[in-house]
Amino acid sequence: MKHQIILASASPRRKELLTQIGLPFTVQAACGEEKCEARLPQKQVEELSFHKAMEIAEKTEGAAVVIGADTLVFFRGKPLGKPRDEKEAALMLKALQGQTHQVYTGVTLIWHQGKSLRQMSFHERTDVSVWPMTDEEIEEYVKSGEPMDKAGAYGIQGLFARFIRRIEGDYNNVVGLPVGRLYQEMKLEGLLD
Amino acid sequence: MKHQIILASASPRRKELLTQIGLPFTVQAACGEEKCEARLPQKQVEELSFHKAMEIAEKTEGAAVVIGADTLVFFRGKPLGKPRDEKEAALMLKALQGQTHQVYTGVTLIWHQGKSLRQMSFHERTDVSVWPMTDEEIEEYVKSGEPMDKAGAYGIQGLFARFIRRIEGDYNNVVGLPVGRLYQEMKLEGLLD
Repeated sequence: MKHQIILASASPRRKELLTQIGLPFTVQAACGEEKCEARLPQKQVEELSFHKAMEIAEKTEGAAVVIGADTLVFFRGKPLGKPRDEKEAALMLKALQGQTHQVYTGVTLIWHQGKSLRQMSFHERTDVSVWPMTDEEIEEYVKSGEPMDKAGAYGIQGLFARFIRRIEGDYNNVVGLPVGRLYQEMKLEGLLD
Repeated sequence: MKHQIILASASPRRKELLTQIGLPFTVQAACGEEKCEARLPQKQVEELSFHKAMEIAEKTEGAAVVIGADTLVFFRGKPLGKPRDEKEAALMLKALQGQTHQVYTGVTLIWHQGKSLRQMSFHERTDVSVWPMTDEEIEEYVKSGEPMDKAGAYGIQGLFARFIRRIEGDYNNVVGLPVGRLYQEMKLEGLLD
């Protein structure tokens, strides 16, 4: 491949997904700009992914493509980030149980072409339906520790699979990186040649 | 739990999924009856899962619940099993690329209640849309070896994630065991108390 791939994320789940589709890459984690001007979910995640990719691209030389990604959970149009404590995790789960919510991941690719930087951003949306949960189930799940570092307070690829009823869209988008769309976009841009 | 859980399947993917949702279980692989009287996809997978569960339940004593499962891929109403060779794998993938197909998993639970055996069966259907694939991509994927032991000649949880556009339904159903629905059904039947 002409371009070395750099993943601008420390997320072990994103590393796992990129490994899964068989692309060689290295990791340079971005701190990520927490502030975001955009209002629409799809614009928010694309903007946040752009900040992460640019933070690393600015430090990079040569034929590299930098991948930035940001995932947010939206319930009734409001973003749910990572819970600050167990109480907030339980509140998020109480909102999500028995309902359908949206997960957006924005992805930005930045790469050198000749003397200039090129970039493209896209997002994927997945609708996730959760089975009804009892208060005991929520309490037990929070105690497992799984919710604490995850947007929306759950990990679809973990214990929480018990409570997932169905999804519409890309599953890996919910885990944190829509690798199907990512592969297709990189192919279209000639970044995999 | 009152009931010991026995998974009547040697599939490493099913073992992984049942482990993921945190239920303790043991494995006793069924050979499985290949013949099937039913015509409808949902009836076929339920019947095949029933044969597997019954094969193990007949050898089992005490308070155990046996889980049998069978997964089939259907394209335009016709079942695609595991490919016999690389040529058949390529033909299956040529049919599935750029299209939407159906994955059905049937699940049967058999358990002792007093002196009698009780059983219930259900199925889940997931629609899977695949990105268009070039002949080179199909050839390369077949060479990876991943298609050979899988219904429909692909593994959604492997390299093939590159080519998955979207799904509607349960992701784990495509991997081989709809653990969300399974957990809910076991809860309803009081098998998790």
